[in-house]
Amino acid sequence: MTSKILKGKKGIIFGALNEQSIAWQVALKCRQEGADIVLSNLPIAIRFSDTEKLAADIQAPVFGADLTKIEDIEKLYAFCSRHFKKKKIDFILHSVANSLNIRKKHPYTELNYEYYQKTLDVSAVSFHKVLQVAYQKDVLNEWGSVVAMTYIAAQRIFPEYNEMSDAKALLEAIARNFGYHYAIRRNVRVNTISQSPVATRAGTGINGFMEFMDYADHMSPLGNAPVADLASFCAMLFSDYTRYITMQNIFHDGGFSATGLSEKLIHEMRGEIK
Amino acid sequence: MTSKILKGKKGIIFGALNEQSIAWQVALKCRQEGADIVLSNLPIAIRFSDTEKLAADIQAPVFGADLTKIEDIEKLYAFCSRHFKKKKIDFILHSVANSLNIRKKHPYTELNYEYYQKTLDVSAVSFHKVLQVAYQKDVLNEWGSVVAMTYIAAQRIFPEYNEMSDAKALLEAIARNFGYHYAIRRNVRVNTISQSPVATRAGTGINGFMEFMDYADHMSPLGNAPVADLASFCAMLFSDYTRYITMQNIFHDGGFSATGLSEKLIHEMRGEIK
Amino acid sequence: MTSKILKGKKGIIFGALNEQSIAWQVALKCRQEGADIVLSNLPIAIRFSDTEKLAADIQAPVFGADLTKIEDIEKLYAFCSRHFKKKKIDFILHSVANSLNIRKKHPYTELNYEYYQKTLDVSAVSFHKVLQVAYQKDVLNEWGSVVAMTYIAAQRIFPEYNEMSDAKALLEAIARNFGYHYAIRRNVRVNTISQSPVATRAGTGINGFMEFMDYADHMSPLGNAPVADLASFCAMLFSDYTRYITMQNIFHDGGFSATGLSEKLIHEMRGEIK
Amino acid sequence: MTSKILKGKKGIIFGALNEQSIAWQVALKCRQEGADIVLSNLPIAIRFSDTEKLAADIQAPVFGADLTKIEDIEKLYAFCSRHFKKKKIDFILHSVANSLNIRKKHPYTELNYEYYQKTLDVSAVSFHKVLQVAYQKDVLNEWGSVVAMTYIAAQRIFPEYNEMSDAKALLEAIARNFGYHYAIRRNVRVNTISQSPVATRAGTGINGFMEFMDYADHMSPLGNAPVADLASFCAMLFSDYTRYITMQNIFHDGGFSATGLSEKLIHEMRGEIK
Repeated sequence: MTSKILKGKKGIIFGALNEQSIAWQVALKCRQEGADIVLSNLPIAIRFSDTEKLAADIQAPVFGADLTKIEDIEKLYAFCSRHFKKKKIDFILHSVANSLNIRKKHPYTELNYEYYQKTLDVSAVSFHKVLQVAYQKDVLNEWGSVVAMTYIAAQRIFPEYNEMSDAKALLEAIARNFGYHYAIRRNVRVNTISQSPVATRAGTGINGFMEFMDYADHMSPLGNAPVADLASFCAMLFSDYTRYITMQNIFHDGGFSATGLSEKLIHEMRGEIK
Repeated sequence: MTSKILKGKKGIIFGALNEQSIAWQVALKCRQEGADIVLSNLPIAIRFSDTEKLAADIQAPVFGADLTKIEDIEKLYAFCSRHFKKKKIDFILHSVANSLNIRKKHPYTELNYEYYQKTLDVSAVSFHKVLQVAYQKDVLNEWGSVVAMTYIAAQRIFPEYNEMSDAKALLEAIARNFGYHYAIRRNVRVNTISQSPVATRAGTGINGFMEFMDYADHMSPLGNAPVADLASFCAMLFSDYTRYITMQNIFHDGGFSATGLSEKLIHEMRGEIK
Repeated sequence: MTSKILKGKKGIIFGALNEQSIAWQVALKCRQEGADIVLSNLPIAIRFSDTEKLAADIQAPVFGADLTKIEDIEKLYAFCSRHFKKKKIDFILHSVANSLNIRKKHPYTELNYEYYQKTLDVSAVSFHKVLQVAYQKDVLNEWGSVVAMTYIAAQRIFPEYNEMSDAKALLEAIARNFGYHYAIRRNVRVNTISQSPVATRAGTGINGFMEFMDYADHMSPLGNAPVADLASFCAMLFSDYTRYITMQNIFHDGGFSATGLSEKLIHEMRGEIK
Repeated sequence: MTSKILKGKKGIIFGALNEQSIAWQVALKCRQEGADIVLSNLPIAIRFSDTEKLAADIQAPVFGADLTKIEDIEKLYAFCSRHFKKKKIDFILHSVANSLNIRKKHPYTELNYEYYQKTLDVSAVSFHKVLQVAYQKDVLNEWGSVVAMTYIAAQRIFPEYNEMSDAKALLEAIARNFGYHYAIRRNVRVNTISQSPVATRAGTGINGFMEFMDYADHMSPLGNAPVADLASFCAMLFSDYTRYITMQNIFHDGGFSATGLSEKLIHEMRGEIK
């Protein structure tokens, strides 16, 4: 299915590492829908990932940038401006998260606060930086659309998600608050997508992740939302079909967020065959 | 802008009275996007409205149905089945609301309970009936999409909105609850759109409505969402770009719902020229 | 524990049937805290319940009233006025719910709409009537407090809760909307308490209820909230310690509402011994 | 009004600077209700404030601690243990917030990120530290209660509230997430109170604050909640009347959060005399 809903649009996609990455699938889909894309990621991540393969597939340049550094973001936007021949960009995807406390197995009640600060910096404050530099350099077209990926742990606890729950709550606040200012200045909208769990490299680093995927799948009336569908929805949020949606957190989760208990889970708990 | 995102889809749209109607604009847009449509409304409303003009414009038949009556809904679905040559339908829009207490000027603290019951019946319970008959007669395709129009008065009080606030809260509950069951049965999704105030015939019947439109416009960072944009978003929710969104209430309101106070409103209150 | 936080307060408590009833425990607690109480319930319910026993224990009169009937509510308030020697009342508890579709085993996708209307009438609209008559007859003191019992099924689906989910959503809307008007008129506050599942007569009528109690208990970090604690909290909401809380739905649920997944449930699903 | 609802309880209250402080009023009220208290604040803040006066009034020692420093928190808890003769404590109030970007007049679109990090550290991460040290040193009794002060800017934008909106969203997430773990370990509950604007020293530093107080007052059906009432509510959350409320954010705001538009504000906007 493609209807070229992003024909003529230009965008930046952060965070594509490998085929499992959300950003990877979004980049593929946006290209299919007619967009021109610049891929970006941490320089070191680019070196140890398959980003170049994706880049070749979708004819997109790759530009390394550490989103915690203002000057890297400035250079990236300057690069985009040259690449797109001074045309402004229309959309940005932020799909970047990293938790040192999870990686180093510190539980939420024994956080290392240097790691915690880095987690917030990489996974949430970086989004403010991406927006603030874009706003100041005026890199986005009127009615541009910016999306960051989040998770329902920002609203309800999922113990293994650890400090990332705090980071996502901060990320959603930044989207809402910056969205206000960018709407007023340029009619740019800023939203977050709260997606079903996805077996990305980041996700599978979390303890008991595959079991959790099953739980979420049983709890979601439509089942977990596949990444390919997320990519479609994300393209839709970048398109002109959704111009007046801003400062929202939208659940793309097969109904998980609105389900308190499901018959599938009851059967599962009873050990019954459905 | 059209990308034929509804190519080959079939749908029913309830509630188009005149050009100001939400349902009217949605019907036009869905047709533009490639859908085949059946229009429906109360028989008496059809007689005293411009529905036939719309019908001619979009080559859609009109079939009268009182959504508070099960047998009317059954007849309508039977008609659709004949019209679409036994093919199932893909989407339904419910954009129907009527408040007798508002019309008769009963404040919320002096409700007439017979009127109240009718308001709930017409504006909310009718949505359950539309869904229940569809579910039992199996009229919707896999991954079909059903949308009802709501308003933020379901979450926060807007005094002039009166008993309709209660009706919308009930409507949203029905969407969520039926959405669960329909997802499990047929992967059908059910959502509500919470739209900026619109100067429809229903809306303008509310006391002080135009002033209220101004307030909402000042409070929304992007301004009130126009009906044409709502129609685009609604088409999007009917399309395959949003398959895993269900049981949600999505704000299409220019950011109003996430705004506690806006600089535009401050200026307005100070009587300043911006 | 008692600190006489309701010393000198007068209140009406609806819905005490037997010792398992929420209203029963709230009445006991309010009495302990120094309040004078009038008990009320459906005349037929009074006849077939232990209400008279409670009445004797707490020296409270019992007055039969069908809350779906305006004249019954008027008579009840007139009785209270005589009983309290023309003094106004300070608090009201609404703990009344009944679902015919559940009792007659109609699933949510096969509702009988006459039953549905009765469910809404008894379980939600009755609350509007209690408030509207109180407001018009001016029976509540300044800073009075009105509470209705609700359940989280108003926000997320619990399939076996059936149509009662819709009724609770409507009830919460009524609390919010009437709360606005009563605050302005008399500084009266209106709130709902969203309580953990309780093994009342109504609750245990729901299919698979005891299993569900277990699930909720495992999911709540503090475990399910006992009715005795609910009674304490309810007394607190009637007291002067909470004067500026109004139009809110407060979760008294051991943390259930903020928990997406708990370690206790994970152990349970794995069949592990904790 | 006092009913000694905190008789025998011991607590720590952070953030009392002067009579306008929330923490000051809460300390007074908790003392009235029978609690023994230790006051704490930044050493430099204690020197330049009236904390000693409060301390004398309520017979509470003052112990300086910088809540961003683990060792300061450890020393404070050690001091409390000596002061309370090895008895554990029952409650903690966190009422600490500071925004360098607001003070230095950086708008939200021109944040200095070093300041931003400090704001998060002082206003939100400090709460995690207070909890984590308490948890590890096991300083709280079973059913202890921890409260942090927050504001509705965590949910909706109030432009002048600037980066503090992000800090409050993070604070609320920390309360929810730590609340889960502390409930499981010791049945300790953790909540935030979302209070009406208060003319504290921190508050009045915000541009246009007094005008904003008026706006909030007009929008709240009961008017802005006074600090004295907040103190009562806070004492109630520390008491045994609310044992099963945890991981919640409760609005103590006269109904502001549930009001979309008020008649008082309409009159105000029209320049009418009510």
